[in-house]
Amino acid sequence: MFITNPYIENYIRNLTNVEDKVLLEMEELGHKLNFPIVDRLVGKFIYLITKIKNPKLIVELGSGFGYSGFWFAKALIDGKVVLSDYKEENINKAKEFFKKGNLLEKAEFHIGDALEIANQYKNIDILFIDHEKSRYLEAIKTLENNLSENALVIADNILWNGKVLEQNLDNQTKKIKEFTKYMFENKKFETCIVPIRDGILLAMKK
Amino acid sequence: MFITNPYIENYIRNLTNVEDKVLLEMEELGHKLNFPIVDRLVGKFIYLITKIKNPKLIVELGSGFGYSGFWFAKALIDGKVVLSDYKEENINKAKEFFKKGNLLEKAEFHIGDALEIANQYKNIDILFIDHEKSRYLEAIKTLENNLSENALVIADNILWNGKVLEQNLDNQTKKIKEFTKYMFENKKFETCIVPIRDGILLAMKK
Repeated sequence: MFITNPYIENYIRNLTNVEDKVLLEMEELGHKLNFPIVDRLVGKFIYLITKIKNPKLIVELGSGFGYSGFWFAKALIDGKVVLSDYKEENINKAKEFFKKGNLLEKAEFHIGDALEIANQYKNIDILFIDHEKSRYLEAIKTLENNLSENALVIADNILWNGKVLEQNLDNQTKKIKEFTKYMFENKKFETCIVPIRDGILLAMKK
Repeated sequence: MFITNPYIENYIRNLTNVEDKVLLEMEELGHKLNFPIVDRLVGKFIYLITKIKNPKLIVELGSGFGYSGFWFAKALIDGKVVLSDYKEENINKAKEFFKKGNLLEKAEFHIGDALEIANQYKNIDILFIDHEKSRYLEAIKTLENNLSENALVIADNILWNGKVLEQNLDNQTKKIKEFTKYMFENKKFETCIVPIRDGILLAMKK
């Protein structure tokens, strides 16, 4: 089951040159550990969206060792990105990478429950949802009022390897679909899905 | 040959509700005439990008009867969108639709050569390229200096029904690939490809 024709994805990936050595090292680590990072196609996309938006505050739910956070930080002019993960080991790696990339001053790092941490922030300009798939709906309901006017919500894995099409949904897929439906039907958001890699939901708060 | 898995595309399309009656009428006309409009998945995407960017001036190359232009106009707060087509009949239809949608004041309409018309505008914040596929590269080279700082370039049909993967390229496909390569290799732009429908190139001028 694939979302984008793999030959097409390969064509786009070959065009998408990444020169940043820290990003390349992170990609290598992701590959080595078989750790699910968003990959450079999503990375370049969220980088561009951030450049266009020019946000002051980005909050990530589920940062892993900081790959998506690094793309966000690179795109920031004078804002900051908040990273969180429940594993200290991941956050320590993220800090190292950000240090190498001279991006430490653009980031805050937290270990613990992504939602509890995020809920300490107000006026979030970009909320990036990429933690436990069963908690996406809970996340947006909890944080909706912490979003600034015209804030963006970006959620990864929204097509969940195509499992959203299956007849008998497992719990994670069911929850992803509930979140997706909530976003599309909620009049407070303008929502679209961009079928990059595992599917990105992009929404703007009205 | 498909770019996005058709079942996935269908899943996204079913979520993407369009309530605007004029857009629905335009979609119906496109279907009836078999006229290549960008479709609602691309429409919603360019709408959101425009909302995030908040541009003053959007210039389209190749507007047909105004479907993409209508999405752009709907997203504008106080800017305007310039539509052009070489067929008077198309532009007349576009005007009618914009009138019905109360968007006339947000648009300018031209009949003639898209590049010549566009070249009369400076400080373009979003350049939407969707005219003859063999002229994309000529278009960006001609208009590069007419773009404002941080301007966006959005180009449709960048994956050209997957023909970009073929061994023996026809002239149009060759030209699309030359344009794509130019954009990715040009240090003045940050570029990505979003595989929605027939492929959208999204770039930001640095």
